[in-house]
Amino acid sequence: MKITIKVPATSANLGSGFDALGLALQLYNETVIETSSYFSISVKGEGSNKPHVKANNIFVNIFYDVYKDLTGKRDNFRFSFFNSIPFSRGLGSSSAVIVGAIASAYKMANFKIDKEQILNQALIYEAHPDNITPAVHGGFISAVVHENRVVKIKKEIPNNIKAVVVIPNITMSTAHSRAVLPKQYKTKDAVFNLSHAALLSSAFMSESWDILKIASQDVMHEDIRMKNLSELFEVRRIAYKEGALMSTLSGSGSSFLNLVYEKYANRLSNALKSSFQEFKVVELNIDNDGFTILES
Amino acid sequence: MKITIKVPATSANLGSGFDALGLALQLYNETVIETSSYFSISVKGEGSNKPHVKANNIFVNIFYDVYKDLTGKRDNFRFSFFNSIPFSRGLGSSSAVIVGAIASAYKMANFKIDKEQILNQALIYEAHPDNITPAVHGGFISAVVHENRVVKIKKEIPNNIKAVVVIPNITMSTAHSRAVLPKQYKTKDAVFNLSHAALLSSAFMSESWDILKIASQDVMHEDIRMKNLSELFEVRRIAYKEGALMSTLSGSGSSFLNLVYEKYANRLSNALKSSFQEFKVVELNIDNDGFTILES
Repeated sequence: MKITIKVPATSANLGSGFDALGLALQLYNETVIETSSYFSISVKGEGSNKPHVKANNIFVNIFYDVYKDLTGKRDNFRFSFFNSIPFSRGLGSSSAVIVGAIASAYKMANFKIDKEQILNQALIYEAHPDNITPAVHGGFISAVVHENRVVKIKKEIPNNIKAVVVIPNITMSTAHSRAVLPKQYKTKDAVFNLSHAALLSSAFMSESWDILKIASQDVMHEDIRMKNLSELFEVRRIAYKEGALMSTLSGSGSSFLNLVYEKYANRLSNALKSSFQEFKVVELNIDNDGFTILES
Repeated sequence: MKITIKVPATSANLGSGFDALGLALQLYNETVIETSSYFSISVKGEGSNKPHVKANNIFVNIFYDVYKDLTGKRDNFRFSFFNSIPFSRGLGSSSAVIVGAIASAYKMANFKIDKEQILNQALIYEAHPDNITPAVHGGFISAVVHENRVVKIKKEIPNNIKAVVVIPNITMSTAHSRAVLPKQYKTKDAVFNLSHAALLSSAFMSESWDILKIASQDVMHEDIRMKNLSELFEVRRIAYKEGALMSTLSGSGSSFLNLVYEKYANRLSNALKSSFQEFKVVELNIDNDGFTILES
C-alpha cells in the first residue's frame, strides 16, 4: 500500500481571534508512505538540513503511537517527506505534522478516515484548536474545545480572496512567544478582543471583507509578540497602505498573514518584496479542503 | 404632525458575547408624539405608577436635546407613552428610550431618518453597542465601537426560532450589576469567552442553532450576576431540560432569555411558568426591523 497525504499550512489567531480562529493555506507538507520490508525516512524541503528531523521524527513517532493502538503491530514503512511549510514561523507546521501522522496511521491501518475523530485525537498532541482544525477541515474556522472535543464552524473562502504571507528569516518559538504574554487582562481589553473576535467571525461568515481590518484589531497578544521582530510593525503598515483587507501576525509569529482582494495581490506582494528583501513573500490561495489522502 | 415610534426590547450579551452581542425582541415601547400648543406627557404601561417618570422624563429630555440641536427651537409637543418594556430587567428599556427619543426628534424636526446616524448619536448616551444596535436595526447583532461609531454585522433570525423570556419581579441595576464584576480576568478565562463569543456569532450567522448551547457558555459575568437572584440558576437548568437552544442572562439581569425551536416554545414556557409562578414568562418573536416610525 502506498499513500500520499497532503496537509495544509494554517494561520491561527487572525488578530483578535486569539487561540480561537484560523484558516488553511494552499501550502502543503506532502508525505508518501508505503509498506516496506524495512523502515526508512527521507526528508526533502523544510527540515532536510536538520539531522534531528530524521533522527527523531515527530511525524513518525505519532504515526507509530496511533498505528500500534489501532493494529497492535509495529510494521515497517518508508516515509518520504516533502515539506513546504517552514518550521517555527507561525504557519502551523507542528499541527500539519500531528494531523498528517494521525490521519495517515488510520489510513495505513485500513481504518475509515473520519475527520472529526482525527481532529479530536489531534487534541492530545496540541491543546489549541485554531491550527489543527483548519489543517483537518480547511477554510476559515471558528472553534472551541468542549469536553475534549473540538466544536467548530467552517466557512469556505471564495477564490477572489488571496493570502500574501510574509515569512521572515527568523524563527519564533511558540512557547517563548506565549511566555511573554500577560497572565491576566483588564476587563476592557478582554472585552475589546472578545467583541472584535465575534465581529471578525461574523465578517468571515457573511463575506463582509471590508470589515476585516477593524474586526481583526487585537490588544491581547500581537503587539507584544511583534516586539521580538520590530520590522513586523512596518510590514503591517505597508500592507494596509497597499490595500490589505487584514494584516495579522500568523499564529505566534514570525510570519505575517495579509488577506487581500485578488486584483491587489500582486501589487501588495511586490510592495512587501521590495521593502523586505531578506524576507520571503508568497502569494497563496486559501485551502478549503483540509488534509487529503491519495492512494496509489 | 403626529407620529408613532415603536422601539423593540433587546437582550444583550447572549452569554459569552459580553458587551458585544445582542438581539431585538417583539416587545415594544410605543410613543405617540404630536405638535401641540402646549407641552404634555402621559404614561401608560411600564412606569405609569412612577411619578418621576412623568416629572423628569429621560425620553423627553433627550428628545429636546436633539430637537433643539437640529432646529434651534423648543416647540411644544404632546408625548403619549405606551411602554411594554419593563424597567431595570435587562431588556434594554434605557436603550429603547435613547433610540426612540433621538429618532423621533429627527422625524419631528423634518430630518431624514438615517439609522446609522441615529445609532452613532445614541452612543453619546449609552457607551455599549449591544442594546442600542439591535434597538435600531433589529435581528442578531455583533458590534464594536470604532472611533465613536458602531461597526456591526446584522443577521435576520427566521421565525421558527422563538424567545421565551423569564422576567422576575425583582429589578437589577446595571451599574450595580457591573460593579460586582472583576476588574481583570485570567488569560484562560478571557480566551474562553473570546473563543465562545466568536463561535456564537458564527452559529447565528450560519443558523447552526444546535451549537448555541455550547457557544453561549460564559465564564466572565453571568454566574457572578446571577448570585443576586439565585433562582436564575434553576431557570437555566429547567430551560435546558425542556429543550432551550440557549439560556442566558439578559443584559445584566434580572431577566433570562431562552431561545427555542418554535415547536417546543409552548412546552418550555409552560414548564417555566409552573416552576416560577412569581415571575412573568412571555413567548416573543425576534424583531428583525429595529425601530419603526409611522406618520399619521
